[in-house]
Amino acid sequence: MIFASDNWAGVHPAIAANLSEHSGGFSVAYSEGALDNAVYDRFSELFEREVAVFFVATGTAANTLALSAYNKPGGIAFTHREAHLVADECGAFGYISGGSRLHGVDGALGKMDLAALEQALARFTPDSVHGGRAMAVSLTQSTEIGTLYSLEEIAAIAALAKRHGLPLHMDGARFANALAALDVSPADMTWKRGVDAISFGGTKNGCWCAEAVVMFDLERAKELAFMRMRAGQLFSKSRFVAAQFEAYLRDGLWLRTARHSNAMAVALAGAMEKSGAARLAWRPQANEVFAIMKKADAERLRTAGAAFHQWPAPHGFTGAVAPDEALFRFVTSFATTAGDVERLGALLG
Amino acid sequence: MIFASDNWAGVHPAIAANLSEHSGGFSVAYSEGALDNAVYDRFSELFEREVAVFFVATGTAANTLALSAYNKPGGIAFTHREAHLVADECGAFGYISGGSRLHGVDGALGKMDLAALEQALARFTPDSVHGGRAMAVSLTQSTEIGTLYSLEEIAAIAALAKRHGLPLHMDGARFANALAALDVSPADMTWKRGVDAISFGGTKNGCWCAEAVVMFDLERAKELAFMRMRAGQLFSKSRFVAAQFEAYLRDGLWLRTARHSNAMAVALAGAMEKSGAARLAWRPQANEVFAIMKKADAERLRTAGAAFHQWPAPHGFTGAVAPDEALFRFVTSFATTAGDVERLGALLG
Amino acid sequence: MIFASDNWAGVHPAIAANLSEHSGGFSVAYSEGALDNAVYDRFSELFEREVAVFFVATGTAANTLALSAYNKPGGIAFTHREAHLVADECGAFGYISGGSRLHGVDGALGKMDLAALEQALARFTPDSVHGGRAMAVSLTQSTEIGTLYSLEEIAAIAALAKRHGLPLHMDGARFANALAALDVSPADMTWKRGVDAISFGGTKNGCWCAEAVVMFDLERAKELAFMRMRAGQLFSKSRFVAAQFEAYLRDGLWLRTARHSNAMAVALAGAMEKSGAARLAWRPQANEVFAIMKKADAERLRTAGAAFHQWPAPHGFTGAVAPDEALFRFVTSFATTAGDVERLGALLG
Amino acid sequence: MIFASDNWAGVHPAIAANLSEHSGGFSVAYSEGALDNAVYDRFSELFEREVAVFFVATGTAANTLALSAYNKPGGIAFTHREAHLVADECGAFGYISGGSRLHGVDGALGKMDLAALEQALARFTPDSVHGGRAMAVSLTQSTEIGTLYSLEEIAAIAALAKRHGLPLHMDGARFANALAALDVSPADMTWKRGVDAISFGGTKNGCWCAEAVVMFDLERAKELAFMRMRAGQLFSKSRFVAAQFEAYLRDGLWLRTARHSNAMAVALAGAMEKSGAARLAWRPQANEVFAIMKKADAERLRTAGAAFHQWPAPHGFTGAVAPDEALFRFVTSFATTAGDVERLGALLG
Repeated sequence: MIFASDNWAGVHPAIAANLSEHSGGFSVAYSEGALDNAVYDRFSELFEREVAVFFVATGTAANTLALSAYNKPGGIAFTHREAHLVADECGAFGYISGGSRLHGVDGALGKMDLAALEQALARFTPDSVHGGRAMAVSLTQSTEIGTLYSLEEIAAIAALAKRHGLPLHMDGARFANALAALDVSPADMTWKRGVDAISFGGTKNGCWCAEAVVMFDLERAKELAFMRMRAGQLFSKSRFVAAQFEAYLRDGLWLRTARHSNAMAVALAGAMEKSGAARLAWRPQANEVFAIMKKADAERLRTAGAAFHQWPAPHGFTGAVAPDEALFRFVTSFATTAGDVERLGALLG
Repeated sequence: MIFASDNWAGVHPAIAANLSEHSGGFSVAYSEGALDNAVYDRFSELFEREVAVFFVATGTAANTLALSAYNKPGGIAFTHREAHLVADECGAFGYISGGSRLHGVDGALGKMDLAALEQALARFTPDSVHGGRAMAVSLTQSTEIGTLYSLEEIAAIAALAKRHGLPLHMDGARFANALAALDVSPADMTWKRGVDAISFGGTKNGCWCAEAVVMFDLERAKELAFMRMRAGQLFSKSRFVAAQFEAYLRDGLWLRTARHSNAMAVALAGAMEKSGAARLAWRPQANEVFAIMKKADAERLRTAGAAFHQWPAPHGFTGAVAPDEALFRFVTSFATTAGDVERLGALLG
Repeated sequence: MIFASDNWAGVHPAIAANLSEHSGGFSVAYSEGALDNAVYDRFSELFEREVAVFFVATGTAANTLALSAYNKPGGIAFTHREAHLVADECGAFGYISGGSRLHGVDGALGKMDLAALEQALARFTPDSVHGGRAMAVSLTQSTEIGTLYSLEEIAAIAALAKRHGLPLHMDGARFANALAALDVSPADMTWKRGVDAISFGGTKNGCWCAEAVVMFDLERAKELAFMRMRAGQLFSKSRFVAAQFEAYLRDGLWLRTARHSNAMAVALAGAMEKSGAARLAWRPQANEVFAIMKKADAERLRTAGAAFHQWPAPHGFTGAVAPDEALFRFVTSFATTAGDVERLGALLG
Repeated sequence: MIFASDNWAGVHPAIAANLSEHSGGFSVAYSEGALDNAVYDRFSELFEREVAVFFVATGTAANTLALSAYNKPGGIAFTHREAHLVADECGAFGYISGGSRLHGVDGALGKMDLAALEQALARFTPDSVHGGRAMAVSLTQSTEIGTLYSLEEIAAIAALAKRHGLPLHMDGARFANALAALDVSPADMTWKRGVDAISFGGTKNGCWCAEAVVMFDLERAKELAFMRMRAGQLFSKSRFVAAQFEAYLRDGLWLRTARHSNAMAVALAGAMEKSGAARLAWRPQANEVFAIMKKADAERLRTAGAAFHQWPAPHGFTGAVAPDEALFRFVTSFATTAGDVERLGALLG
């Protein structure tokens, strides 16, 4: 009953098998081999236009390098105040960008409020050297708390960004979960709505280590090749990432695993509601369930072998939490089983 | 007949198998799982003392983060002028260290000359704010051109570094090749000679992606955990690196693959000498053979399917190269076969 | 009637005279001349203990270098959300510190609220590599909106910082104005309350360019010499800064000019209240007056030759501002005359 | 008899007087005042085309910011191996540029050898992410050892740089000395020969603190405004720098002081040659004299009150230096008097 994070899971058998399959032979190194190129083409096919793809080691690398492609002296990237970039990357953005900074935007349910973003952008004048300059907007899809931006919300944020001459980046650590939940195409959820660059994550959804920056501006992408190398993020045997993505994107595996995770979250939410011992903090839209429980009950679950994290209340959360209660996060993954969910439900009940 | 680089090879079957074996189940993420810890212990056992181990994505990351642990404002790290850090990492050291720099030291056969290093160090006064300050010395073992520092040479460089209050870092991208060639223990080649930090590479010797910083100063190592995370180098599913190292270090696999690579280099050198069409630029000591050939012969080999690189003459090289000749590098790996070597020899002859 | 900023004023005649007096002859360069050393001694005398003094070019340099002396990978410095460091330095802190970041703390009247600071600090765990680490606390005295921390408030913030193992930095761009207003000694307002490092500004109070970092930890200060040089902040003819500080600190000139500025602010506040056309947004405690006026009145003043800035409402400001009104900032300086204040009052009235 | 450096001198009386003259009144701050603008116009007039001018605090700031305007990830700036940028700025270039680096080029007499530069540039392929990328070429005029690039030499370096798509920067810490010695116009020595950006120094030639970046590409210059602010190099009371430059550039003062310095160097060289106790290491072309003397004689001069530095032999220096001799540097300035020179000559003789 591991619900601590989707990155506690292992690797999907089909991906493991493909890695083994590609383990022999020789290949050009440093992202320029035949398998790398085939996977780049697969990404272009997937996004219905030519894209530039850069494999990197981690989501933090993807986020910070993607945004650095739009870097400016005195630059400020705008993102939700609880975004992974802000809260969980040890200040990597400032470091990798050479000193630019993040401006946290308010918004309920883990999503930037459009008016709050507009107000935040309005504080900075492009020509003033004192306050710093807006350089990009970033949103996480699905969000860090398991909610979703609708296509309309993405389009509205992109339009606002464009009015300020800014690119829109999508932290897609859980891109597949969002895509599966919205049941739209990759193009629909990204460039057709105004997204310029994506941190395309495969690790949380069944890969071992498969993260990529995907960019639609091919000219600007050229600089990223140097930024990636300079940051120590260019794998020599890059085909091992390519092999993971090849299997991941083949025959819709990635969407099947994402749909499974999402379904497990729905099932878990249902079990919780049914139990009466936990109530949902908000409705899960992807593969994360946030629930309020008695701390004693949480302890009991842990003793029985369940793993999950207590979580700080997000901005705008107005739910009542009694002194003997707390907010907890449960993350499902491709490896979560209906049995896990049932066992947890039974323990709760 | 792939001799382009040892990182064009794939993964050793035993390592691939161990990755698959560990693909299921769940594990604590971010370098703190049971398998990670077991592998850290294995490293300590290997080095005959407690070490701190940090898995990272690339050799460039290992080199630049290891040195950054000893960073100073105005810092200067001394290394051979043709070291990988200087020549092949896109300036990553300056970037990752936040602006410190490398000072290239002369020396024949890819090795820092002790007197040249002493002279270079003497140029910088620790207390002067103008010239900058020595912060570390780094040597590559085996070197970028397939030669070796003897234990005595390592000890002499370490002693000189210590006299200047400086740590000694070893770029061990081909650590195993050096160890196998010298037939000594990891402790013998490192801390017993005064080495303080190692970039411990497994990728070139049969892993997919297994690089680690190994440090002997446990106190100083604590900061590296933050530096690694900030640099986007902390894998979430770090156990996939651990699984590679586990197999790599089990039952001496790493030394067997290294010995094989080294033996293939000796065989290749022999085949070249016998052929008369190529002459060795210098005697190979690890898994790289540098030879002078007619460009026409090189072209002929390539047409027949051989892959290898032309190479600039290293510092201090005094061999004669005719206008219709050039210097070429051939790298052997765990995956090189005696048949590959024979075929190349036959083509040459 | 220039109330735009105290840095629109020129130089006090006594300081200009001293600069001219020292213009001849020769001196050791780069901060090590006789006059430099005499002024360092003067600072030690002033602070009643030995201090380390570093002249730099700007307040931004002083703030960012002083804090960088306490830098950590993943570092976070806590300061008021409207502090100069956050709002007016083009992200210099992130850049100069090599990627560390600021965390804005709430608080009314331009001052960090102690509880808000405590809550902010509590969000970061020293040992977690994900969230980043607290590295310092910084307060501005007098604040960016002309208010003051009492000695007790400084001591309370310092005590909280110390409980978290953090140094306390004081942005003293208007150090003298605060000192004069509180009528205490430099030691009283700083190290006796727990302050570790100061950006000691002279420019806004009558110098041309006289800013210094003052540190009480002499050991840690040694690194700052390298950081300053590396940042291009080490003047060759540093005695020109020393000459300014010599005159500035001689016979209490700096306190007289500060008292004058402060008195002019009081007079201006009085004139405003008397006029009925402007009401004070809050009571001025140093040399800045914030008032709410009709925009039409502001326009009228400007047409008559007055210079001052419209200002965004600070955090926690609850005053009523009608649609045809706005908040305006008026800054007084050593060069402000009673006549200026009277003229403005007359125009208002 | 102070020949230690031209920055040991004070300020020229006319410049001191102009500073005092502008000490009163009020001015718009942060480089946008009337006097600032007038001086910018003066620079444009001087260079016979519109230029962008950025006042900064030090030559190190000017050099590193000017080059940073052309920064690239993995960037390499090429300059003489003994250039101030390399040898005397505490690694500021790597820091200010966010991790780019310098490549030292060989050349006798302190000047890059054209063939050596060509060879150095040839080592780096623009499209390879491994080796790093050329981003700029920088030359010092007059050089760090008192020699001059002829206009033809500047043009040849610029042409080579342009063939590689690179800008040419001129470190003009002693710009006036070079100009006076060559007796050409500022335009002749810079953009008419292909120079793109200049570190325009006034400090060493009679100002207190007057350094500026001058750029001919006005579009690119816009970014420098943000880079300067972010680096803490934007003076609030910038008119104090403007006032110095106003006097410096008025009625040819700067060329008169430079001619004087240069003439004093010639006189000093003559006195040395006449004395027989010192021989010139090479012919001085600007305001620095390098001579070989017995160490005992040097000691004798110092005892008699002379200040000057021993100097390491520059690259390519082939002069004979006996064991009891050393190389010494003597720098003249606007403040050097014929009497100083005579006294030194008399002591020598």
